[in-house]
This record gives sequence, C-alpha cells and structure tokens, in this order.
Amino acid sequence: MRQAGRYLPEYREVRGDRDILETCKDAELVVEITLQPLRRMPVDAAILFSDIMVPLAAIGVPVRIEPGRGPVVTPPIRTMADVERLRPLEPESDVPEMLEAIALLRAELEVPLIGFAGAPFTLASYLIEGGPSKNHERTKALLFGEPAIWEALMRRLTDIVSVHLLAQARAGAQVLQVFDSWVGALHPDVYRRAVQPYVREVFQRVRAAEVPTIHFGVGTGELLPLMVEGGGDAIGIDFKTPLDAGWSRAGGPAVCAVQGNLDPAALLALWEATEGEVRAVLAAAEGRDGHIFNLGHGVLPETDVAQLQRVVDLVHTETERVPQ
Amino acid sequence: MRQAGRYLPEYREVRGDRDILETCKDAELVVEITLQPLRRMPVDAAILFSDIMVPLAAIGVPVRIEPGRGPVVTPPIRTMADVERLRPLEPESDVPEMLEAIALLRAELEVPLIGFAGAPFTLASYLIEGGPSKNHERTKALLFGEPAIWEALMRRLTDIVSVHLLAQARAGAQVLQVFDSWVGALHPDVYRRAVQPYVREVFQRVRAAEVPTIHFGVGTGELLPLMVEGGGDAIGIDFKTPLDAGWSRAGGPAVCAVQGNLDPAALLALWEATEGEVRAVLAAAEGRDGHIFNLGHGVLPETDVAQLQRVVDLVHTETERVPQ
Repeated sequence: MRQAGRYLPEYREVRGDRDILETCKDAELVVEITLQPLRRMPVDAAILFSDIMVPLAAIGVPVRIEPGRGPVVTPPIRTMADVERLRPLEPESDVPEMLEAIALLRAELEVPLIGFAGAPFTLASYLIEGGPSKNHERTKALLFGEPAIWEALMRRLTDIVSVHLLAQARAGAQVLQVFDSWVGALHPDVYRRAVQPYVREVFQRVRAAEVPTIHFGVGTGELLPLMVEGGGDAIGIDFKTPLDAGWSRAGGPAVCAVQGNLDPAALLALWEATEGEVRAVLAAAEGRDGHIFNLGHGVLPETDVAQLQRVVDLVHTETERVPQ
Repeated sequence: MRQAGRYLPEYREVRGDRDILETCKDAELVVEITLQPLRRMPVDAAILFSDIMVPLAAIGVPVRIEPGRGPVVTPPIRTMADVERLRPLEPESDVPEMLEAIALLRAELEVPLIGFAGAPFTLASYLIEGGPSKNHERTKALLFGEPAIWEALMRRLTDIVSVHLLAQARAGAQVLQVFDSWVGALHPDVYRRAVQPYVREVFQRVRAAEVPTIHFGVGTGELLPLMVEGGGDAIGIDFKTPLDAGWSRAGGPAVCAVQGNLDPAALLALWEATEGEVRAVLAAAEGRDGHIFNLGHGVLPETDVAQLQRVVDLVHTETERVPQ
C-alpha cells in the first residue's frame, strides 16, 4: 500500500514541485514512479501510482492536492445542485493517461499490478468537507440530516468508482483495491444503513472484471464483518486491530483473505524493535491461509528505505510465497 | 464531557480573545464558564473548565493552545535532557487558581463536580509531537526506539497526573476523569507494554482520594479490556464502538460502569434524526445497570444548544436517575 512516495528520494526528484494530480496525467511519469519501489525491494506486487481524487478531478471537480494537507475541494459539494453537477466518468476520454500507464506497466512488470479507487464514502467526505477532516462532521450532518442529497451523492460516486475500477481492469490491472479510508469514523449501524449498500454495489459491478479485489479502511475494528459483507476477496486490517482478532471477526479464511497489519510507525524504530513488530504480525497469522503481509496504513514520508528493505527480506525469509 | 466551550455564545463572550491557559488561571472565570452549561440544561454533573495541558504549563513547559489547532509545544520534548527538565507538580503553588475555583464551585453546585486530567500517553504525545498529530509517528518512534527515554517520560508524567488528580479531589472534586484521548492509535500489545503500567499506577494512586473515577479514550474498541484492567470505576466508550458490544468487551457491569456514546455529529442533524440516535444509545444500554449517558466525544463547536437541551430532556424522560 502506497509503495511509491515521499520516502523515496528518487520520487521527490522525479516529481519536483509538480502537483500530484498533474503528475498522474503523465503516463511516462506514472510508470516511472510505480516502478521505483520495485527497483529497491522485491515486493510481490506493484501498486499503480495514482490518487483517489483522480476520477473526480477528471470530471471537473475543483480539487487540488495540498502538500502536507491532502485533497482540498473548493467550493465543496453540499447541495442537490452541487451533486447534480457530478457527471458520469468516461474513462477512455477522462483518464486516458492512467489507462495508457497501466498498459505500459503490464509490459514491464513481472509481478501483478494493483489498481485502486477511493470508496464512495471516503470520496464523499472529501467533497462535502472540502478537505481532510478530523471529525467528518459536515459529512455526518448531511448523512443524518439530508438523506435525499446523501443518497444522490452516493449513487453518483458509486457509478464513478465502479466505472473507474472496471476501466483499470480492462486496461490490465490484475487486482483492484478499494480504499474506504475514513469509514472507521462511523458507528456500525450508520455504516450499515448509509454506506454499505453503495460499497456493495461497487464490488458487485466490479465482479464483471474477474480479478481479485481488496477492501481497506482505517479504524474499522468494529466494521470488519460489515465490510466483508460489503465485498472484497481480501479485507485490509489496520494496525490498531490485532490481526488474529480482526481475522476471526471478519469471518476467517473461509470467507475472506486478510491483508495487514504492521504499524507504519514501527518502521521508524531501531531495527531490533521493528523486527519484533514484524514477527508479531507473522505470529498472529501463523497457521492460517490467505495472509497478505502489508502495512496497516501507508508508508510514512520519514521512513528509511533500508528499514522497508529489511522488512521485505524478513517476510520473504520467514514465509512461503503463494505460487503465482 | 467538554460541556463548556465554543458552542455557547456566552462562553465566547466571556473568554473573548484570551488564551485558554490564561483563562484557566482566573478562578472567577473558571467558575463562570463551568456553570454556563448548567444554566442552559439540567445535566446531572458539572465538569470543571480546564485543559489537560494546565499542569504541564504550570511546571514551565512551553505550551500554548492555538485556536482551531490545539496544544502546541515549542520546542518539543524528545531527549533525556528534555525529560529531566520536567519537574514534579506542586499543586498548591502551581495551580492555585484551579483549586480555588473547585472550592468556589462546590459552594455553588447542586450536582457533583467532575475534575480531570490527561493520561500520561496522551500528554506524552503532545510533548513529543509538539502539537496535535494524526499518526503520532514521533511518539511511536520514541516508544519503539528509545525505551529508556519513553520510560523516564512516562514516569514523570504519571507522577504529575496523579498529584494533579489528587489535588483536585482534595479541593472538592467528587469524580475524577482521566482522558487518554489518543491511546486508540496503539495496537493492544503496544498499549499493554508501554502505556498500561503507567495508567494503572495513576488509578492506584488516585484511589486514596476515595472518589469514583472514569477512564476515557477514542478509537479504543480493541483496548477496552486492557483499559478496564488499567483502572477506573467507569469506562468511556467512544461513538464508533456499539455501546452494548463495548460494554460486553469491557467485562460487563460487574466490573465497570459505562459512559457513552452518542456521536457528537448526530447533534448537527434535524431533531428527528438526532432523536433516533439518542434512542439507539438508550436501547443499547437497556436492561443493564451503570450506564452514564454521554456523548462519545466532545461537543462540536457548531452544535446548536437547543439540540443539546432536547437530548438532555429526552434522556431524563426515558430513564430513571440514580438517586444521589
């Protein structure tokens, strides 16, 4: 997850001062940045360099990615008229560079390529709040107080996300990951009512692509069974939920594979401490099939690449790889 | 929880542009602000107007509360030398205005007065990060990578927090609440090893005061059993964990009373939706003894006071109050 990025000096060099969304419109750059971490570490898959806001920017939503802050949407989307201006995504004309980059990457890569999208709730939160939010209060106020607008917004986003994912698979992505990063802010009853139907529709529509799917969020300990119901062949477990407890709650390997869950901050420690944390994750997965070792959230920018390399080596030494 | 504050126009008027920490040094103002919400709503207890950074500011830590951001510590505390400059708290000379305000409030109040403090981990996070943090990465890096500094810092904070709470009880506080607000960022194994011993010592030392105690954090679904072990006669449950599930996980009423857990954002909705959310909390507590109805986190600044008043009335109508 988020393999490429600011922790790599070669990424900072290639991107320079360019906006992330601009960078995503240059297929050659997307290919280069996607390949960078693989030149450093023998990871088992590549994840496309992109941003969850790409499809929204592509249909004309006024969004920019502010360094150190994240996606900012000005003006935000809060009324029915705002929602009605969100037009459907037409991938071939709206995100051609991304589709081109995927095709180029497939020619280069010896490991599977993961495409991804933000889930409707997480995208809705950015659109409604106008930026990253600690409490997601405007999103919840709309969800609780304006159900018709909420439903209309979630319907349009569901369509955009589904179309976006299907296009990535058609272009060559071999796995699709859905990031519902902020859904952990919700009580399970609210999730079930106001979010799950839409994310379920995304996974149902994406089934047509016949590729494995991964469903990920943060702070989702209470939501795991509902997220599994929502869809995905694998469920991401964040670093706050013990891997074994989360796995049991998600329904076990019969239902769903599990991805996770090293705390990215554990990579900032001395190797001895990091190694202990990696081994603890492996021990929690011991004896179960269907574990994808990963961080429980994205790589922090201040991470030393050497630490990541040691983690990849340790995991490969200690585990048996699934034959491809 | 956080009854006083920016959602009350009379609070904004009284405080004006004054820094929160300055405001806390004026006993008359503390009394006035503590009483403000009680003039609006017949809540069952008052919570002292203060801030978790008060005892640290009082021993000379360079902290200020930035409006819209929170506590900022410049320079932050990251070395053993920094830690050794944290001197013990002497409440009678360091926070005399707070103690005076508690005595004045006791003369005025007909409901119990709740005093509080931040827990060692949450205070440590502000000191190490230098301000509010999304990922608490520097805190974790120190915890994982510099165990001697971590231990020394937590020991000093444990002493400061215990002394601070005991002084509040001696001055007249009838309940003590410990806010470990950010502890939900930790994996349970890390909590058990690096945080629980210190918070347990706080609760053990505070037992001398012979007043009920409340232990609160956010995002603590996985930590509840360990927090109960850490201490507290009641455990706070945030709004993301279903009250009944959290209650069972915390060990049930035999072990611990439970406080919570209406989502503060539910107060921003139309009353019909808010009412539904309040009734859902009451239904989740149905048939169990020892439920303190509360929000699952602080009141959001944009909350309409009328909504809070309706909630208080509804809860009083629907439940039987514990005789005092």
